Amino acid sequence: MNEPDSPSARTDTRYERGLAILGEMSGARGAAIVDALADIAPDLGRFVVEWAYADIFDRPGLDLQERELATVGALAALGDTASQLTFHIDAALRVGVTPVEIVEALVHLVPFMGFPRVLNAIRVARAVFADHGVTVDPVVMDDDRDRYERGAENLVRIDGQHGLDVVDSLKDISPDLARYIVEFSFGDIYHRPWLSPQRKQLVTVAALTAFGDTAPQLAVHIGAALNVGLSPAQVVETLTQVTAYAGFPRVLNAIRTAREVFEKRNLSVEP
Amino acid sequence: MNEPDSPSARTDTRYERGLAILGEMSGARGAAIVDALADIAPDLGRFVVEWAYADIFDRPGLDLQERELATVGALAALGDTASQLTFHIDAALRVGVTPVEIVEALVHLVPFMGFPRVLNAIRVARAVFADHGVTVDPVVMDDDRDRYERGAENLVRIDGQHGLDVVDSLKDISPDLARYIVEFSFGDIYHRPWLSPQRKQLVTVAALTAFGDTAPQLAVHIGAALNVGLSPAQVVETLTQVTAYAGFPRVLNAIRTAREVFEKRNLSVEP
Amino acid sequence: MNEPDSPSARTDTRYERGLAILGEMSGARGAAIVDALADIAPDLGRFVVEWAYADIFDRPGLDLQERELATVGALAALGDTASQLTFHIDAALRVGVTPVEIVEALVHLVPFMGFPRVLNAIRVARAVFADHGVTVDPVVMDDDRDRYERGAENLVRIDGQHGLDVVDSLKDISPDLARYIVEFSFGDIYHRPWLSPQRKQLVTVAALTAFGDTAPQLAVHIGAALNVGLSPAQVVETLTQVTAYAGFPRVLNAIRTAREVFEKRNLSVEP
Repeated sequence: MNEPDSPSARTDTRYERGLAILGEMSGARGAAIVDALADIAPDLGRFVVEWAYADIFDRPGLDLQERELATVGALAALGDTASQLTFHIDAALRVGVTPVEIVEALVHLVPFMGFPRVLNAIRVARAVFADHGVTVDPVVMDDDRDRYERGAENLVRIDGQHGLDVVDSLKDISPDLARYIVEFSFGDIYHRPWLSPQRKQLVTVAALTAFGDTAPQLAVHIGAALNVGLSPAQVVETLTQVTAYAGFPRVLNAIRTAREVFEKRNLSVEP
Repeated sequence: MNEPDSPSARTDTRYERGLAILGEMSGARGAAIVDALADIAPDLGRFVVEWAYADIFDRPGLDLQERELATVGALAALGDTASQLTFHIDAALRVGVTPVEIVEALVHLVPFMGFPRVLNAIRVARAVFADHGVTVDPVVMDDDRDRYERGAENLVRIDGQHGLDVVDSLKDISPDLARYIVEFSFGDIYHRPWLSPQRKQLVTVAALTAFGDTAPQLAVHIGAALNVGLSPAQVVETLTQVTAYAGFPRVLNAIRTAREVFEKRNLSVEP
Repeated sequence: MNEPDSPSARTDTRYERGLAILGEMSGARGAAIVDALADIAPDLGRFVVEWAYADIFDRPGLDLQERELATVGALAALGDTASQLTFHIDAALRVGVTPVEIVEALVHLVPFMGFPRVLNAIRVARAVFADHGVTVDPVVMDDDRDRYERGAENLVRIDGQHGLDVVDSLKDISPDLARYIVEFSFGDIYHRPWLSPQRKQLVTVAALTAFGDTAPQLAVHIGAALNVGLSPAQVVETLTQVTAYAGFPRVLNAIRTAREVFEKRNLSVEP
């Protein structure tokens, strides 16, 4: 019998709990990844189970769908992650994220990291969908309103005055870049209705964190996350989720940015 | 009949114009990429056409050759972009960039991002050249002058006093690193005559922007771009081009750096 | 007869010396890479030989094992470097780094860049080990002490007060992230005994430099490198080694951080 207070029993418990969560999210795939590490790096498999799954995926504050969306965003941003994206797009489907939400999460990232990262991830998503026998009813935006006008509305609603400041600050040097932010990022992309504003911000914050060198944009989009109804604790959970996929340095830098945003709004993190 | 002033007609026009430019640059490849997205992400294909091609590639200020060189530089820097590099090295050839210029643009990037990114891109270039049936007459540098001496001359001509300051600032901590910058970056690499100084700076600015975490070096090389004859508007166009490949955050950070460089020189951006 | 003082003789000497070192480290593989570039970019092959091998790998201050460990760390961090990792894990084995050290160097990087980069590199390592006919006796940590307790001990020993400050600064916003740093990064990972503390810091500093946007973490880990017995000159050598794999901008930024750390400790770089 394991005694719950001894360290070794606690370790066993973490491993078993992690393996159960991993199984729930990935079927046999998760155990296969752990087994495949047994030949040269068995402890690495154990760390995946204990730290990524028992410690992080099992945390409260975000549900498994939200954690998978954040993970997919971080992996897409990181690049050179096709096999991990395969695993986590599969897991996202298993925990109930819809194919359309996965596609929309990736489309949402175009303004933040350009087409290549997104097109690579879409290619992975297509293969995983086929593997699941999922047929996607592709969604197509049909909105005749002026792109600038609807973009400006979205910009103010999501980013508030801060978004307008960014756009205005570009007018002396690159008015067209300012226009593209309004028309494309907010008129075309943010305008899409198939992923909730909260989930869009989750994915954005996770992806910007993993991408690196994005502190000013993280400040804007952590603010936007709060604006659309995420709590400070949910923002911190999103960052915590990214730790397993992009490491502590990226996340600690993002935490510093989050703290500044919370302090300006007199918010504290209460889980 | 479409009425030219209605938003939907304007949207059609952007799509048709984008598709025409994409076709001019890529033959059937471009349409194939758009078609391949129809199953799960049709709007993503539309955004490629409308935003990347109708909005960005069709802009004045840089010609298609310059835009493709900037794009190739950004993609090489980003990494995990073999399929996009295949597409854009092919497009670069179609719009008239020579194979030697493409190779030289990549060789030029070694000091900025090391051998791996460049060797990966060279492998892609070789495959595209073979696909085009292009035979490259490989160019080989033959210059007996002392590498340090010719490097120092190039450094002063291109970067001005700022370049010397960077080199001097290293002498207390790493004099050899300073020497490599002079001998290798400027004596070996910048010394090569097969890509114009303006195009070298275009590629450098695009690549540094996409690479990320390069603000001090971007300041030096935006300055160098001005020194070799690019206008502020051309620098901003180069950054605008990168948006489609590395996203707004990288580009907005680079715009901030560009503004500081322009202000120090009392330059304004006049298209 | 070459006259040793003429520039052309000196160039020949660099090439021959570089080729000899490359051969020592890679057998026929190195020459094959150089030959493969002869068709479109012969000078690029020459630069690999002359700059990466004759100038950098041949430097004093770090031995070839340490240089290969730093290189493997930088390549793993950079991503999209499977072919370069294949080459340098092979070279690491040839110069005497043990398979277990290679695996441990990669496992050590999980907290710094997450699982995906490490799992990709482990896959490459497995293939190289198989190619060498090397059988790895996988090492498994077995330590019943409380993870937090042993982690806190390691943290103080390696990072000193600075490590505790980082952990404390997280307590208001993310106490669990602070706990994971202690339990996982220092209790699980740093606690592993199969790679020396000096080599761990070499790999960490090289990887953080190549990863980018890690200035605060580089400051901590350059400090830790000094704490475990590396000299300032060895830290600078590690950064110099990274230049060939991630370019000058990343390294110049890291040099700036290193200078600040050295100055705070009143250390100068004496080779």
